[in-house]
Amino acid sequence: VNIPASLERLVAELARLPGVGRKTAQRLAFAILRNDTTRAHALAQAIEEVKARIRFCEQCFGYAEDTRCTVCTDGRRDPASLCVVEQPGDIYVIERSGVFRGLYHVLLGVISPLDGVGPDQLKVRELLARVERGGVTELILATNPSMQGEATALHLSRLLGDKVPRITRLARGMPVGANLEFTDDVTLNQAFSGRQTFGS
Amino acid sequence: VNIPASLERLVAELARLPGVGRKTAQRLAFAILRNDTTRAHALAQAIEEVKARIRFCEQCFGYAEDTRCTVCTDGRRDPASLCVVEQPGDIYVIERSGVFRGLYHVLLGVISPLDGVGPDQLKVRELLARVERGGVTELILATNPSMQGEATALHLSRLLGDKVPRITRLARGMPVGANLEFTDDVTLNQAFSGRQTFGS
Repeated sequence: VNIPASLERLVAELARLPGVGRKTAQRLAFAILRNDTTRAHALAQAIEEVKARIRFCEQCFGYAEDTRCTVCTDGRRDPASLCVVEQPGDIYVIERSGVFRGLYHVLLGVISPLDGVGPDQLKVRELLARVERGGVTELILATNPSMQGEATALHLSRLLGDKVPRITRLARGMPVGANLEFTDDVTLNQAFSGRQTFGS
Repeated sequence: VNIPASLERLVAELARLPGVGRKTAQRLAFAILRNDTTRAHALAQAIEEVKARIRFCEQCFGYAEDTRCTVCTDGRRDPASLCVVEQPGDIYVIERSGVFRGLYHVLLGVISPLDGVGPDQLKVRELLARVERGGVTELILATNPSMQGEATALHLSRLLGDKVPRITRLARGMPVGANLEFTDDVTLNQAFSGRQTFGS
């Protein structure tokens, strides 16, 4: 295809992003090209700056611009409740919902023996140290409901079971708006075994 | 939400792109952040360069890095066949299919009175001049099958009808892989009225 070299390079770079296929990359590249130069420059600048400024919070390993993130330094958060997630981005999903007022701990991955990732490759030692410093009364294991997420949660619950009064994980069941017909067997199984009294 | 400022700026810039909602923008921003700095820099660089290097081809108004695009300067293309499209990106869709070996003319828009866009705001005068220079035996109007695309094609067919031996437009009908059940009435109507002899 007779596509100009610099346009092709942009399409190729965009197509490297996860979930962005070649067609989406082209569509985005054309949109960037149609924008005025100021807009395109602002996007390029934002990409450079995010890499230059963002680091991992030294306490929770979420994203931060200082040594500690804005959640860890927020005095109104409850340090007794610690929510463990796989990736920094998971924090914003939970924050958006406004359902949790405690602190976080990001593992920066999941246990995945096939990929050579064990607890030592994750921020598990740091989690243990945080818990051993005391004051944590509930540990919420919010790893993904995937095989690896479950294995990671199981590992953590064994490791920390006698150090925290209460270890929980997010409820499994039918997501709101779902449809019985299209619900997979495992989810249905968990929705049945975890069924709740009507009105509770 | 406690999102770091530079990350929020990147999400906001990405969310300005068409078809990119806030959730997709966040997903892309996290992916950019997870990439190493070289990768992120390459993307930022590609964005700046595409704006710096790409201009409109002086003949067809497609994208080019020189005064003329690679299609217009390709001696193997047939200048007797001219395909009119709305946007530069449309050229690559047609090029990818390999179905067309002539030259292009990009209108850089469609006639849309509600948006104050008439023929004078498009590259219609330039199309007329190209046709009047002679040598074009077929004009293929490949504007989108939308109301505005149709109106634009109608305008061009009237304007150029006595200057070109043959003016055509892309066939309307059922797209390959489509399903009768989910085909809209207008498409179905056009598929019936344009029905073809079996085996032809």
